[in-house]
This record gives sequence, structure tokens and C-alpha cells, in this order.
Amino acid sequence: MRALVLGGGGMVGQKLALHLSVHGLGGEPVELTLHDIAFPPQPLPGVNQIVGSIADAGTAARLARTRPDVIFHLASIVSGEAEANFSKGWAVNMHPTWALLEALRAEHEADPDYCPRLVFTSSIAVFGGPYPDKISDTFLQAPQTSYGAQKLICETMISDFSRKGYIDGISIRLPTICVRPGAPNAAASGFFSGIIREPLNGQEAILPVADTVRHWHASPRSATGFLTHAATLDTETLGGRRALNLPGISCTVAEQIEALREVAGNDPVKLIKRQPDPVIEKIVEGWPRDFAPERAKALGFKAESSFKEIIEVYLEDDLNAPGP
Amino acid sequence: MRALVLGGGGMVGQKLALHLSVHGLGGEPVELTLHDIAFPPQPLPGVNQIVGSIADAGTAARLARTRPDVIFHLASIVSGEAEANFSKGWAVNMHPTWALLEALRAEHEADPDYCPRLVFTSSIAVFGGPYPDKISDTFLQAPQTSYGAQKLICETMISDFSRKGYIDGISIRLPTICVRPGAPNAAASGFFSGIIREPLNGQEAILPVADTVRHWHASPRSATGFLTHAATLDTETLGGRRALNLPGISCTVAEQIEALREVAGNDPVKLIKRQPDPVIEKIVEGWPRDFAPERAKALGFKAESSFKEIIEVYLEDDLNAPGP
Repeated sequence: MRALVLGGGGMVGQKLALHLSVHGLGGEPVELTLHDIAFPPQPLPGVNQIVGSIADAGTAARLARTRPDVIFHLASIVSGEAEANFSKGWAVNMHPTWALLEALRAEHEADPDYCPRLVFTSSIAVFGGPYPDKISDTFLQAPQTSYGAQKLICETMISDFSRKGYIDGISIRLPTICVRPGAPNAAASGFFSGIIREPLNGQEAILPVADTVRHWHASPRSATGFLTHAATLDTETLGGRRALNLPGISCTVAEQIEALREVAGNDPVKLIKRQPDPVIEKIVEGWPRDFAPERAKALGFKAESSFKEIIEVYLEDDLNAPGP
Repeated sequence: MRALVLGGGGMVGQKLALHLSVHGLGGEPVELTLHDIAFPPQPLPGVNQIVGSIADAGTAARLARTRPDVIFHLASIVSGEAEANFSKGWAVNMHPTWALLEALRAEHEADPDYCPRLVFTSSIAVFGGPYPDKISDTFLQAPQTSYGAQKLICETMISDFSRKGYIDGISIRLPTICVRPGAPNAAASGFFSGIIREPLNGQEAILPVADTVRHWHASPRSATGFLTHAATLDTETLGGRRALNLPGISCTVAEQIEALREVAGNDPVKLIKRQPDPVIEKIVEGWPRDFAPERAKALGFKAESSFKEIIEVYLEDDLNAPGP
């Protein structure tokens, strides 16, 4: 089977690609192509890489013409950048999805047997407060960032193209992925990973919010599991609701820190420096904190069962893993 | 003040235009321009008409350059047509809204004082079943038609452009407007009006569904009220949720017929012919039936208090009214 990963150069894309190239998908080997604006210096063996922007005219159509069986659509700029650069946000996070869907529909119309599975990484940013204690599967979407609005719009298009039978799409609203390996990124959510990762690497980490802040997490390993499960499940079971809140771990920053202490002792915890940042505090205040993702659980999506387990996944898969 | 009505040639657009030209808006006289692909033969006095398609390249930008203070965006093709003609649905019901928003943003960036009120007529078609008994203000949007998907996407764009301060938008999800005056239209919902209007005009009407079918209604007079109220309310009170479920009357077809009997006696009721249509039955089965629109009520939106009142509005405003 042929799989295409849009945004295949990013952290989650690379982990997914490694998984697919080793394990295949649904018991079948995968001929894998990654597309992104940039890739890590060391390409994965046996994996095709295409460098380019999904926002460039003609790119979506060119990729659709290769008729992948499965498309993982992870390509987007992050929330902070979409907020700072309004035009770029819509140009990268919304319009190319429309172009891709129209290109896939054209392929389907040329050959009605062609109806690819499209797995779209949406986000809990489609939600906006005020929130109930736990966000249920029937809670309204009311994004409070351009990124969230763009994700909701892509979900909505994907559902409608799927309902009409042009593609077979599913949107998965990822929790914040934590612990992100590697260097800090510019995301406002970066500290959720930073306060675990930096101390485990013997480095100081800044905590810009109060430790009562509650948030919704899953590991990069779970993200790969979500993606491959979404690529292989029977979409008939989704009814008309093809966007899913995924399982995760809801915990406070204090609970994250406590889990770090349990796993690694007191010394790493001492490396966390409290340095409140009102800008980040305000952004984070608007984010979802807890979910009751019953549908996704019933459909077989799985995340960790504690934040401690999330840290252990980081130790196994990243800190102590041989580099790629 | 200058107001622009997109879709100003349609039934609701014409009623709104008549109201604005007589009463003004918020105590101020209105210099009114209507835009649509076609208009009734007799133009409203003192009202500018522009014939054209909102989907034509450059139209949105040309209209934005006139810098209306208030824009009522009612322009769309109906649900049935958007379902039958997929490309046309997106080309008319989605892309021009994007073009309009970008054009208004450009005007705002040229003159930061320019931030028009945009009132968008969305629809209860943004929802999809299964439904609770009453749809609350926090129930998820999961459209099951292209029309509903397009409305949800426009709402989401309008909210985000508003959040950024480029426009001051509000989306109102209209109930089914009933009793529609004039000739039957092609909408699958047409019979809800037809079974009242035709008998009151001494003509036979076809009822294609069971009389246990429950639906959500408001009169054309209420529609005008919704639009003018949305154009003048303080949008700060909306918080981050600029799309509203509006009040209406939830009743069964049997209750509609009973109200007709109360208002006009037995003879009109005998003109209703039951002729089940499985296609229409299936479409209607997917529609919302009842709401608890607490936010809109608290914000001062008002509909009728009974279906009988909806019929009386038809008698006063249309059946017995002098023609335009």
C-alpha cells in the first residue's frame, strides 16, 4: 500500500514514518512518501522525501495524482505562528486542505474506485471556553485562535467530502503531545514538555504558569498509535461524525512535576524555575483541560493511563533511544 | 448609515429591505443597497439594486470598497441545490464569504476605523443527529449536508475575523422560515409552508411526511427582527461565541394543521393531501426538531409564541397585505 505523510518532516511525522516503515500498516508493508518544507538531516531508510510547501499552487494536485491509498495530513504551522501571521495561517492551514480535497475528488471522479483514507490531525484548539469540567463528545466547537478555526474548517470540509464518498476521511483532535523530544519549539505549550525534558537532560527549565494549571496530554508514541488506528478503523462506525476527541491524560502542572519526582527523584525537579509569564498564562487559560472521550475509547483509541507513563515513554523512546 | 444586503432579492432579503427602508436601523435612516443575481420585477423605492453573482471574481472586493456600515449576508443557494450540485454549493456558499472577509480586512487595514457589522444568516443545518430532545447552546455542530458544512465554515471564518478585530460579525442560525409567501420553492422543507399557504389560498397542498414530524419554525417577520436585532446588539456580550441558535416554535405537523384549523376552520384543512415521499421523509428525518436557545433569548432575540401566531403573521403580512 502507498502512504503519503504531509508534514512528514516534523516530530510526529517522523515518528509515524519510522513506525510505518518498520511495521507497515494493517499488516501490509507501506511504500512511504513524506512531504514537508524541511526534513531532519538524516533521511529514514527506504522512505521517499519530497521537499516543498503544501501551500504552493499545484502541489496538492501533484500529490493527489500519485493516488496514495492513505494520506496522513499533519501539515500546518503552529498555533502561535498562525496567530502572529494571520494571512500565513489561512494560507497554510486552510486553503491547501481545500485544494487537496478538490484534487482527490478529481482523482475519484476519474476513477470511482479511488477513495483514499485521509487522516487529518486536528486539535483540541477547536474548542473554546467556558468549559464544563470534562468536555464531552457532544460539546460545541468554538475556537478562540485562528489555528483552531482553521482546524475546525478543515474537519468540516473533510467530513463533507467523505459523506459524499469522494474520500474516506477522519479527523483526530490530538491532545497536547508531551514529552516532545529535542530542542524547545516556539509553541506557547512548549513548557509542558520543557519542564520534564530539560530536567531529565540536566538542564534548567522555565515554568511560566502556576502549577495549578490543568491540561490534556498524550505521548508521541500515542500520537503514532492514534494515526495508525485512524488509518485502519472502519469509518462506517463513525456515523456522520468524523471528528473525534482522543483519549489523553488530564493533569495539573503540579501532578506533572510529582510524576517527574517519582520517575527521576528530587534533583531534576530542582531544575524547574518558576518565572510567571502573563502572556503565556493568558493563552493557556483559554485551553481545554479535561475530556470524556467516550467515542474514541469505544472505537479503540488508546493513550497512556498516567503522566508517569508519559514520562516513561519519553525515557524509552527518546532520552535513552539510539538517535535516528 | 449605509447598509448592504447580499442576497437582497430573495424573500427574506426583500422583507428586510422593506423594513430598513421604512424604519431605518437603530433609529438612523439607512442608505440601502441590495445585491443579488435577480430581483422581483418591482424594485423597492429609494433602494439601490446591483445585479450580479457574489461568486464572480472581484465582486466581493468591489462591494467591500463601498465600505458599508452594516452588511447583511443572506446570499446562498438552498440546501437541495448545494446537495445536487457539489461544486456550485462550495463556489457560492463558501468561497465568496472568504473573499468578502479578505476584502473587508483590506479595507480595515487601509483605515483601521473601518470595522463593519456583518450579520450572517446561518442555519440549523449546522447540526446533525442524533439529537437530544432539545438542542442546547453548547451542542456540537456536525452538519450532514454540504449546505450545513458551508454555513458552519462561514460562521467559523466570521468569528475569527471578528476576534482579530477586522470586522464585527455575528452569525444567526435561522429556524425554518414559515409561512413563506408566494409560489412553492424547490426546498425539501417547502411543505412546512405549503400545507398552510396553499389551503389559505384555496389550493390543494401535498404533505409528504407523517404528521408526527416535529420541526423548528419562525415567521418571515421574526427573520427581519432577528436580522435587525443582530445588526444593532452589543457584540461584546457574545463573548467568544458569535454564532447563535435563535428562538422559534417547535411543533409537529399535526400541531401545524391544528393551528390552521383554529385560524381558518375545517375547509382549508381538507385541502391537505397526504402523499408520503420517502426521499423527503429521509431528508427531514435528519433535521433538528427542538432547541433551548437560552443565549439568544437572553440577548433579546424574539420569535412567535405559538404556531397559530405564525399563521396570523402570514395573514397580516402577506395574504391580506397589499402587494409591493
